[in-house]
Amino acid sequence: MMSQADIAVIGLAVMGQNLVLNLSDHGFRVAVYNRTHSVTTDFAARSPEAKLVACDSIAALCATLSVPRRVMMMVKAGPVVDELIETLLQHLEPGDIIIDGGNTLFTDSERRMRYCHTKGIRFLGMGVSGGEEGARFGPSLMPGGDVQAWPEVKAMFQAIAAKANGDPCCQWVGQGGAGHYVKMIHNGIEYGDMQLICEAYHLLHQAGGLNHDALATVFDRWNQGPLDSYLIQITRDIFTVNDTDGAPLLNKILDSAGQKGTGKWTGINALEQGIPLTLIGEAVFARYLSALKDERVTAATILSGPEHPASPEAPEALIDAVHDALYAAKIISYAQGFMLMKQAANAYNWTLNYGDIALMWRGGCIIRSQFLDNIKTAYDTTPDLQNLMLDTFFNSALKACQTGWRKAIAIAVQHGIPVPAMSAALSFYDGYRSASLPANLLQAQRDYFGAHTYERHDKPRGESFHTPWATLARTPSRSD
Amino acid sequence: MMSQADIAVIGLAVMGQNLVLNLSDHGFRVAVYNRTHSVTTDFAARSPEAKLVACDSIAALCATLSVPRRVMMMVKAGPVVDELIETLLQHLEPGDIIIDGGNTLFTDSERRMRYCHTKGIRFLGMGVSGGEEGARFGPSLMPGGDVQAWPEVKAMFQAIAAKANGDPCCQWVGQGGAGHYVKMIHNGIEYGDMQLICEAYHLLHQAGGLNHDALATVFDRWNQGPLDSYLIQITRDIFTVNDTDGAPLLNKILDSAGQKGTGKWTGINALEQGIPLTLIGEAVFARYLSALKDERVTAATILSGPEHPASPEAPEALIDAVHDALYAAKIISYAQGFMLMKQAANAYNWTLNYGDIALMWRGGCIIRSQFLDNIKTAYDTTPDLQNLMLDTFFNSALKACQTGWRKAIAIAVQHGIPVPAMSAALSFYDGYRSASLPANLLQAQRDYFGAHTYERHDKPRGESFHTPWATLARTPSRSD
Repeated sequence: MMSQADIAVIGLAVMGQNLVLNLSDHGFRVAVYNRTHSVTTDFAARSPEAKLVACDSIAALCATLSVPRRVMMMVKAGPVVDELIETLLQHLEPGDIIIDGGNTLFTDSERRMRYCHTKGIRFLGMGVSGGEEGARFGPSLMPGGDVQAWPEVKAMFQAIAAKANGDPCCQWVGQGGAGHYVKMIHNGIEYGDMQLICEAYHLLHQAGGLNHDALATVFDRWNQGPLDSYLIQITRDIFTVNDTDGAPLLNKILDSAGQKGTGKWTGINALEQGIPLTLIGEAVFARYLSALKDERVTAATILSGPEHPASPEAPEALIDAVHDALYAAKIISYAQGFMLMKQAANAYNWTLNYGDIALMWRGGCIIRSQFLDNIKTAYDTTPDLQNLMLDTFFNSALKACQTGWRKAIAIAVQHGIPVPAMSAALSFYDGYRSASLPANLLQAQRDYFGAHTYERHDKPRGESFHTPWATLARTPSRSD
Repeated sequence: MMSQADIAVIGLAVMGQNLVLNLSDHGFRVAVYNRTHSVTTDFAARSPEAKLVACDSIAALCATLSVPRRVMMMVKAGPVVDELIETLLQHLEPGDIIIDGGNTLFTDSERRMRYCHTKGIRFLGMGVSGGEEGARFGPSLMPGGDVQAWPEVKAMFQAIAAKANGDPCCQWVGQGGAGHYVKMIHNGIEYGDMQLICEAYHLLHQAGGLNHDALATVFDRWNQGPLDSYLIQITRDIFTVNDTDGAPLLNKILDSAGQKGTGKWTGINALEQGIPLTLIGEAVFARYLSALKDERVTAATILSGPEHPASPEAPEALIDAVHDALYAAKIISYAQGFMLMKQAANAYNWTLNYGDIALMWRGGCIIRSQFLDNIKTAYDTTPDLQNLMLDTFFNSALKACQTGWRKAIAIAVQHGIPVPAMSAALSFYDGYRSASLPANLLQAQRDYFGAHTYERHDKPRGESFHTPWATLARTPSRSD
C-alpha cells in the first residue's frame, strides 16, 4: 500500500513545482497532479529526491491523502478554479480542505468559501508572493477563508514560508476573501514601488545625466539605507547587465509595460471604497500610458517641452533629492494602502492585524524591505494607529525628506520629466495635512447648479443649507 | 373624450417637472404621473397654463398617449427603473418607446434595451444634463439605445434641448448604453473641471493672498477669455456672495465634498478599459480626501509643511500662471476623456461622433463652454483625430500655456499647496510627449522576478526575450 501524502498540489507550472519542492524539503509528502499527465511524470523524473506521489487523476490524488485531506490548487485564476472545485467535491469528504494559491480576485474567494461551506468543505484563499525563487525557498503566504481550516495547515505553511527575524511570513489574515484581498493590496503596492523607482531612474538619467554604471552605484548605496529592499537591489543588478554588444541591456528593452490586472483591481476597489489611493492609481495609469508606444512616438514630434530647457543638475544634490522623493512617496503609498485595508476591514467585516500584514510582506515577496519592519513596529506599538504617516518614525522621515522631495518635483517639472507618482504623493501629503481644503468652493458650486446643499463650519454636521446663489450674486468690480 | 398626449413623463421631482414644462412650452401635450398622486395634482394646479394630462395610474397614463406611445422615466436610477419597466410592459404595445432620463449606469441601459427589445418595445437611455435650469429652458440631451426609436422622438427632444449657435444640443449618440455612457464621461469631466477650479482658487487665495473680491474680479476676467464657461461664471458669482454677517459665505461652507458616483464610475471604467484617465481619477480621489475632514484637522497639527515657507507671489504673475495651468490642465482632462470614449467605442462597438458630442456639451449642461466649440471644430475638421492634444489649436494653446503651467505647479510645491489635478495633467502631458518612458526598467524588473519576458526596440513587436538577470549581474563600483 502506498504511503499517505500530507498535502496535494494541483497544477505544476513553475510556481506549483517550486512550492512542491519547498514542501518536500520541509519533510512533507506531496501528492501531485497536472491536467497534462506528462508534466507530472517529467517533474517526478526530474526530482528523484523529492517526496512525491505522482497521480494521474484527481480521484487517485484524493485517495492518497491523509485525512483531513488538504488540496492546494496552483492553477490560473478564473473559471477553471470553479470547475476544479466541482471535480474535487466528488472526491472529498466533509472536513477536507481546499486551498486556492492563485492570483484570485478576493470576491471570488469569498463566494467559493461560502459555496464550499455548504458542502462541508473548508476553503482557504491564500495569496502567494515571491515569484519562482520565493516559492522554492520561502514565499510570503497570506491565508484567509474558513478559519476552522487554519490550524490544519498552519504548521505546514509556516514551515515553508520565508522568515523575517525568525518569524514566518505567513499569518492568519481573516475570513472569506481576506487573504486574496491582502495579496491584491500587496500587488498594488508593488505597482507603486516599481513606478517610483522608474521615476527616480528617469530623473537621474535625464536631468542628472547619470549613466548606467553611476546608477548602479547609486542604487547600491540606497540599498544600504532606509530604501533597502528587494526591488532596489534587483534594479541595481539590472543597471549592471550589458547586452552582447557591451551596451546596457536596459536601453534595448521596449518601454511598454505589461500587467496582469491586480493593480487595476486595487484601483477599482479604492474607487468603490471611497479611499484616495492616488499613488497606486497613477502607477496603473502610467503602465497604460507606457503601452501607447506608437502614439507617444508620434506625439513626441508634435508636442513641445519646456521652452527654456533647464541646465543639468549637480549630480550629488540631485541624487539626494531624488532619494528623499522616492522614500517620502513610498511612505505615502503604503499609508494609502493601509488606509484602504482599514476601510475594507470595516466594509467586509474583517479583523485585520496590520502588524502581521507588514510581517508577511517583510520577507519572501517582491516588496520585501527593511521599511516593512518599521511599519510592523508602528502597528505593533499602536495597533489602532489612525494613519501610518502619523506614526513618529514615519512623520519624522517625511519631515526630513520633504525639502528634497519638493526639490525633485520642481526639477522634474522644469525639465519636462513626468513624475506622476512622486507628485501625486506630494499633493496627497499636502492635502492630508490641510485642515482646510478648497472643497468648500466645490460644495458651493454643487449647491449653485444642482441645489445639492452644503454643511457649515459653524453648524453641526448633518445640517443642510441651500443658498439662492444666482439671486444674491453681485457684479464684481472690473479693475481694467 | 380626452385629447391624446404626445409623451408621458413619470416622476415629478424637480427635474421631471421642469422637463414637462419645457415640453409644454414647445407645444407638446404631456401626460404626467407620480407615485404619490398629490405631487401630480399639486403640480398640475401650480401649472394651469401647461398642456398637462394628470394621471393617477400607469394604466391611465398609457391609455392617454398617441401611438407609438412615448414614456419617459425621470426616476431615481437603480432597481426602481426595472420595476417601472415591468409595470409599463403590461400597458404598452409593440413599437412603443420607453426612455430613461435618469443618471443610469450605461451597462444597465445596455441590458434594459436588450430586454425591452425581446418584448417588442424600443428603449432609449438618455443622459440629461443642465440641472433644474437646464431642464426648464434647454438641457443637454444625450440619447442612445434603440436607433429605431430615434426618428420618433428626435423632433421633440431637439425642440426642447439647448441650442449652440442654432444647433440643438441633442444628437443621436449610439446603440445600447451609449447615451448614458457619454453622460457618464460628461460627469467625470465635470468632476475634473470643478477640481481644477478649486486648485486655482486655493493657489490664488493661499499663495497670492487674493481676497474674495479680487477672486471675483479675476474669474470675471477669465470668463471673457478661453476659459469662458458656466463653471467659471458661477464661481465668479459665488465669490461675490456674503453671509448675513457681511463676510464671504464661502468661508462658512464645510470643505467636505459630496458626490453621487458618476465620477467614480468614470474612473472605474478607465481602469477597466486601460486608459490613463489620470486627471478625473485625481478629482474623484480629491473629493474622497476632502471628506476625511476630522482626520485632516488632526493631521494638520502633526504633519509639517515646507520648512522654509515661501514668500507670497506677486499677484499678477501668479494669476497669469494659474490661468495657464487651469487652461492647459483642462485641455488634458478633455483629451483623456475623449481617449476613453474612443476606446469605449471600440470595446462596445459604437460609432461615436466626437464633434456631435462636443456640440451636445456646448450648451445646456454644467460643463458648457466656449472651449467645446474648439473641440467641435477640431473633430469636425479631423474626425479621426488621434488625440485632442495633437489638434493645431490645442497644441498651440498647450505650447503657449506650459511655462505658466510649470510655474504654477512649482509655486504650489514650494508653498505646500496640493494641486493633484494640475500636476497629474502635467505629468501626463510630459509622459504622452515622451517617445521613451522608463517602463523599460519596469519590464526588466518584471522579467527579473517573474520571468514575464520583454520586447526589444531592435526586434519586431510580439517577440519575447528573457534574461537571467541575477546570473549576469556584476558588483557595482563603490566610489565611497
